[in-house]
Amino acid sequence: MIVTNLTNSGRGETIISRCREIAAWTDVPGEITRTFLSPSMQGVHALLRSWMEDVGMTVQVDAIGNLRGLYAGADDDPPRLIVGSHLDTIPNAGAFDGVLGVVLGIALVQNLAGRRLPFAIEVVGFSEEEGVRFSKPFLGSMALTGTLDKNTMRLEDVHGVSVSESIRSFGLDPAAMPEAAVSSSAFAYLEMHIEQGPLLESLGKPLGVVEAIVGQSRLLTSFTGKANHAGTTPMRLRNDALAAAAEWIVAVERIASARDGLVATVGNISALPGAGNVIAGDVAATLDLRHADDAVRATALDKILLEAQDAADRRGVEFGWHQTMDQPAVPMDPELADLLDAAVRSAGIAPVRMMSGAGHDAMIVAARLPCCMLFLRSPGGLSHHPAESVLTRDVSAALAAGMEFLKLLEEKYTNIASRGRE
Amino acid sequence: MIVTNLTNSGRGETIISRCREIAAWTDVPGEITRTFLSPSMQGVHALLRSWMEDVGMTVQVDAIGNLRGLYAGADDDPPRLIVGSHLDTIPNAGAFDGVLGVVLGIALVQNLAGRRLPFAIEVVGFSEEEGVRFSKPFLGSMALTGTLDKNTMRLEDVHGVSVSESIRSFGLDPAAMPEAAVSSSAFAYLEMHIEQGPLLESLGKPLGVVEAIVGQSRLLTSFTGKANHAGTTPMRLRNDALAAAAEWIVAVERIASARDGLVATVGNISALPGAGNVIAGDVAATLDLRHADDAVRATALDKILLEAQDAADRRGVEFGWHQTMDQPAVPMDPELADLLDAAVRSAGIAPVRMMSGAGHDAMIVAARLPCCMLFLRSPGGLSHHPAESVLTRDVSAALAAGMEFLKLLEEKYTNIASRGRE
Repeated sequence: MIVTNLTNSGRGETIISRCREIAAWTDVPGEITRTFLSPSMQGVHALLRSWMEDVGMTVQVDAIGNLRGLYAGADDDPPRLIVGSHLDTIPNAGAFDGVLGVVLGIALVQNLAGRRLPFAIEVVGFSEEEGVRFSKPFLGSMALTGTLDKNTMRLEDVHGVSVSESIRSFGLDPAAMPEAAVSSSAFAYLEMHIEQGPLLESLGKPLGVVEAIVGQSRLLTSFTGKANHAGTTPMRLRNDALAAAAEWIVAVERIASARDGLVATVGNISALPGAGNVIAGDVAATLDLRHADDAVRATALDKILLEAQDAADRRGVEFGWHQTMDQPAVPMDPELADLLDAAVRSAGIAPVRMMSGAGHDAMIVAARLPCCMLFLRSPGGLSHHPAESVLTRDVSAALAAGMEFLKLLEEKYTNIASRGRE
Repeated sequence: MIVTNLTNSGRGETIISRCREIAAWTDVPGEITRTFLSPSMQGVHALLRSWMEDVGMTVQVDAIGNLRGLYAGADDDPPRLIVGSHLDTIPNAGAFDGVLGVVLGIALVQNLAGRRLPFAIEVVGFSEEEGVRFSKPFLGSMALTGTLDKNTMRLEDVHGVSVSESIRSFGLDPAAMPEAAVSSSAFAYLEMHIEQGPLLESLGKPLGVVEAIVGQSRLLTSFTGKANHAGTTPMRLRNDALAAAAEWIVAVERIASARDGLVATVGNISALPGAGNVIAGDVAATLDLRHADDAVRATALDKILLEAQDAADRRGVEFGWHQTMDQPAVPMDPELADLLDAAVRSAGIAPVRMMSGAGHDAMIVAARLPCCMLFLRSPGGLSHHPAESVLTRDVSAALAAGMEFLKLLEEKYTNIASRGRE
């Protein structure tokens, strides 16, 4: 049994102050902007390496630039628990999205105070999750799961630098990519992350256990009517593309609101010619639709498209669309989620079972390993913003829950080991 | 009595070909673009001057650049009928908006074949109606009515050239502006213009008699919600500015459609931050609202603002607005409109009594003189577009109606004169 001899509040404060220390490494002075393998990432690696080595971990950087610290288990070649999240940020980000999960992983090891478990712990700081530099997310977790293909390696950033070249510039060897693949002894992945949404706060709860990362549909839609004089065209003789789109946007909101867990968003719209005294002839609008159940999402999308067609038809407007994303939902491992749920309860907190509306590295890792995710409440639901924050007591709670999770895993592995010896 | 000894179709063709000849004078080769006192306007003046002089008119250009041809009456110092429209265009315009009314005015005089009436006819080609060069319309008709103020004269175009300087560059003297004021002997104004809308075509009618130029409200509106993650923000926790604006746009359409003659348009909209995966936090949208009865327009505006407030309130979104235009309706002179109506009937056509949804010089002139307007059907409702057109038979019909209008006016003036002699 693990002795969790920590002053929770003290640890929470330390973790937050470490996140802020990392945030000082930025590509753009005055904001927090840290893209894939930028020079500032070297500073982040140096900081994390020192913290990892301080608690007895062996540190390396793999070929995609993931920082990986290994805390050995009690036995030789033990099974391996992966605890990870990402180190990169969007432009002008907050200090906790991603990084918090890595710093929390190191804190878990620190709290073991040198004690060895029947499994090793590998803390991974993924080099790339946000997709800013190469307009493609998850490069770090793809390398870990061996799914980074050659076309991705040839992608170029805005300066014409390829992924391979950026790796070499950082002092790494792209040819060593196969060695970045996660150890065959890995048995589970835990990601701790801020919620990046308002649900936990609205329920007054600090922690959530993720059941699935929702599936996403993204569409570009077009409504093509007829631009005409706003003063001389009677209402009944109009083909108003914006009125059609507006009716559809209201329907999108209504359809999503009627189904639990469904979210649908028209986030961008443009109307042409775009003059106040001219009826809009052409409207382009986006649709973002998410649900944890792909069948629910598909049914909702059908309804939404029918509403658009109907709103367009009644106005003699043409409706067109094409799908730019159709990403299935990724369930977390039910057993691991239950174990994490039990761990949160053992830490004295009633967890919220919830969906992740955003994508995370766990989505990629899930193709290779059983995954679970722990969400920490986001004050104000705020993320991807300089004012992004996290409560000290919530970080302490997450740390305590993480320690309970290790304890439950230890019990499980001890049982398995003893059964193996029987 | 006037002898209208014209081959209608022949005249219609001539008038159309003259409009196309004028259209060849453009500031921008390959399109029809002719702004206030641009060099191409000299060519237009030369053409019109020759056509006016051919039919016995005395021609001058006033200080604002209006081309004015006077066809004297039978007596000395007779009352004066003004027939006018504008010579300038929007960028990339059609060949008939404005110019047609001037060419038709000359054709009326031509059809008199030298006969003198108990009133003089002054055909005015207004130098500026569209407001392109100085972002202020109606400079020509304002000079005619003596309402061009000093601030307007100081307005600058995009090259920093003031109205006064542009007048001098064209070879005119801004100090002579007072002499541009219409003669005190003027008793009526007739403007013939393409409809610039689809109403006449939809009714299968060639000509319309305008009862009023509608009043206009223009507003800029704002919906301020909260930008948030499209995936992680449940529907019930959103403050979606675009959903609020969309519900309002549908309401705007519904309110306008429920009242005869009311038109309301949201022609421009923008949503920020404008990403497909982010809930819109800020939406700006325009409103254009028009009706011939100012009280109806005011009531409709109240309803529209209440709907916006309601759509915003239900989503925790703030609604704001400010009015950028509140222009009262301008009724045409009822007696003149009836006379024009009778003239159209005498020409064998059942006229449509209608509103003008667009502004015209008659709107300005109406402050000084009794006005009437004759609309010609716009094929496809198309105007402010290179494909703008007019049917030859409709132009012939307008010319015939115009001749009947002169005849009715002649009868009226002959009666007045004889009563005066009694």
